[in-house]
Amino acid sequence: MKATVTIMFKNGVLDPQGEAVKSALVGLGFFDVKGVRQGKIIELELAEGADQNQVDKMCQQLLVNSVIESYTVEIL
Amino acid sequence: MKATVTIMFKNGVLDPQGEAVKSALVGLGFFDVKGVRQGKIIELELAEGADQNQVDKMCQQLLVNSVIESYTVEIL
Repeated sequence: MKATVTIMFKNGVLDPQGEAVKSALVGLGFFDVKGVRQGKIIELELAEGADQNQVDKMCQQLLVNSVIESYTVEIL
Repeated sequence: MKATVTIMFKNGVLDPQGEAVKSALVGLGFFDVKGVRQGKIIELELAEGADQNQVDKMCQQLLVNSVIESYTVEIL
């Protein structure tokens, strides 16, 4: 079983990495770029029988800083 | 217009961050975790009229190290 966790900064939280990527893209001539947000994606390979509850627990205990980040879980 | 670029290490490329996350999860008691790969997700906010070709160029010129990383683009 596979699960994918996507972690992004919450709206309103400063994202310096995204800003840096945006500046670099504009500097390369990509003037269509209006905004960039960078996040993390974590692909988990799980034993059969694991479920979304367990992935939520992993997020809360380790993967996500819920003060500044939000996450979505996709079970594949 | 929005585009999402998902960047992962290619299969076979060592992913030390993913290994560290795996060890930490197992250490917390999540014994169902068999493997972890960590990647990046970049959300681009683009002016109307931009297309996938342009996003591919951004990936090739800046966002992706094609020697060790692969990417997928999703236009929203």
